[in-house]
Amino acid sequence: MIGVVCLNPALDITYHVPAVDWAGTNRPSAVYARPGGKGLNVARTLHSLGADVLAMGLAGGVTGAEVAVALSELGVPAEITQIAEQTRRTVTIVDGRGDVAAFNEPGPRIAAAEFADFAARYAKAVTRCTAVVLSGSLPPGLPADSYAALIEMTTAAGVPAVLDTSGAALALGVAARPAIVKPNLSELQALPGRPLVTGQGTDLEAVAAAADELRAAGAQAVVVSLGPDGLLAATADGRWHAFPPGAVAGNATGAGDAVAAGLAHALVRGLPWDERLRHAVALGTAAVAAPRAGEFSTDDYTSGLAKVTVRRDPVLRDGAR
Amino acid sequence: MIGVVCLNPALDITYHVPAVDWAGTNRPSAVYARPGGKGLNVARTLHSLGADVLAMGLAGGVTGAEVAVALSELGVPAEITQIAEQTRRTVTIVDGRGDVAAFNEPGPRIAAAEFADFAARYAKAVTRCTAVVLSGSLPPGLPADSYAALIEMTTAAGVPAVLDTSGAALALGVAARPAIVKPNLSELQALPGRPLVTGQGTDLEAVAAAADELRAAGAQAVVVSLGPDGLLAATADGRWHAFPPGAVAGNATGAGDAVAAGLAHALVRGLPWDERLRHAVALGTAAVAAPRAGEFSTDDYTSGLAKVTVRRDPVLRDGAR
Repeated sequence: MIGVVCLNPALDITYHVPAVDWAGTNRPSAVYARPGGKGLNVARTLHSLGADVLAMGLAGGVTGAEVAVALSELGVPAEITQIAEQTRRTVTIVDGRGDVAAFNEPGPRIAAAEFADFAARYAKAVTRCTAVVLSGSLPPGLPADSYAALIEMTTAAGVPAVLDTSGAALALGVAARPAIVKPNLSELQALPGRPLVTGQGTDLEAVAAAADELRAAGAQAVVVSLGPDGLLAATADGRWHAFPPGAVAGNATGAGDAVAAGLAHALVRGLPWDERLRHAVALGTAAVAAPRAGEFSTDDYTSGLAKVTVRRDPVLRDGAR
Repeated sequence: MIGVVCLNPALDITYHVPAVDWAGTNRPSAVYARPGGKGLNVARTLHSLGADVLAMGLAGGVTGAEVAVALSELGVPAEITQIAEQTRRTVTIVDGRGDVAAFNEPGPRIAAAEFADFAARYAKAVTRCTAVVLSGSLPPGLPADSYAALIEMTTAAGVPAVLDTSGAALALGVAARPAIVKPNLSELQALPGRPLVTGQGTDLEAVAAAADELRAAGAQAVVVSLGPDGLLAATADGRWHAFPPGAVAGNATGAGDAVAAGLAHALVRGLPWDERLRHAVALGTAAVAAPRAGEFSTDDYTSGLAKVTVRRDPVLRDGAR
């Protein structure tokens, strides 16, 4: 069973409007409401992959109830710790002429006792997990070392942890020695505060050096998602670069969650690093091509596997492709 | 007790964003969620006026639960008949630079058995009412004569009904002899399908003639809301025109609901027509001046009463002001 920690889930509401009147009244032609937030996207992707998954999250209020009901309808097992404040909503307006506007409510404030309640339940559940993914930003009220505390419990149980977050939560989480951390380029760049992108594009050598630093700080492996440039990994089994045949048109929202899900799924299946990265790139690419964030076409995913290029110890300074 | 029928309530969500990026991600500086839809706006206004009110509505799903919880928090007594489908949301984006965009979900489909359940509860509750307001559009699934059926039950119980709706529901409702119908100009204009506004502005004589026709069709009194031109009433006690001292800057959404509430409140207090119209105009004007739809400042309302001009049997052809 793969556990997925979702401390800041959301109810994602999407309206499709053929031609939005940004100064008037609109009647959406389609309305979708579904569980969201990075953690729940990972859990849904793992569930779609056929993995045995358990979403472990904090939720409250009627939007929290709606998230729990929707997860149940999707067949995603979940263990929800109730909180007093209401789970946030996001509203996305998709204009048929091309623009997409998103409105993200602030997350609910989590009380210390609520997180303690969650952690106690987590300590029990983690012993039944083969891996755990911790994904997304921390909601207001939680200290920046909250993921670090959960990772320490995970590692103590002999279970590998995959961490996908940013800022101080990432920096402190790394020190707790997760099996994999998966920053994207801007999250990695923010850590030491130095540029990884130059006028000539992404400086892959600098990315690899920053990834090595995260390994030195505690992470057992670092996988950096580079958008259309694929994944750059620093592992105990060497450096790797894996990338798709070309840029894919579509919606990049949620592609990083697909990558995290793919890494965790390949990890529990015991695949070596080249295959882990191949699966993660194919899944991320299929997610970009899917019309809605957090979804993917199984055909796109499986047919994409053979198209991924994986290089070990690539020569980065000359450009990897 | 004033009953308010709310067959198509909504959860109104409002986001304030200082400068909206209509093609990007926004983090609202303020988030409001409150019970909405015309009927619940009337109920909230009556509650704010200190009236003993009972909101009687249909609601379902978690958004329906949120509406019920929010009404309870506002202290508005409500009797909710559960429906299978989910209560609609509206999302309003207020751009700090001036534009307001609204996104109104379609209402839930109401099953015949659900409306029968509502009607049975309504039949009991109406006997405790001194007046009933029926306000808003009918949700999908309900026949156009649904208001007419409720008004017949109301009138049979000796209780005056105030109807504020449009289209076929208005035309059929009028035939059930409500005490007051309150169309706005465009709703009145749509009924016979003839223009009431000319190049010279609103043709008040034509409005009065159309109102007389609604009286002939069954309504005991007709009060037409004319926006900044106030109210034009055709009653058994003659024609009346009541209007504020001038146009008020603000948000006209919900002003019609304030007028309906004001008319019902004055009716149960036994006020004569000139005072009913004075109160309704002052309340509608205060609602326009309030920053949020469905709210008003008590000071604006009470200080506005003396500023309303009320004319009996006005000379309309020469312009009333």
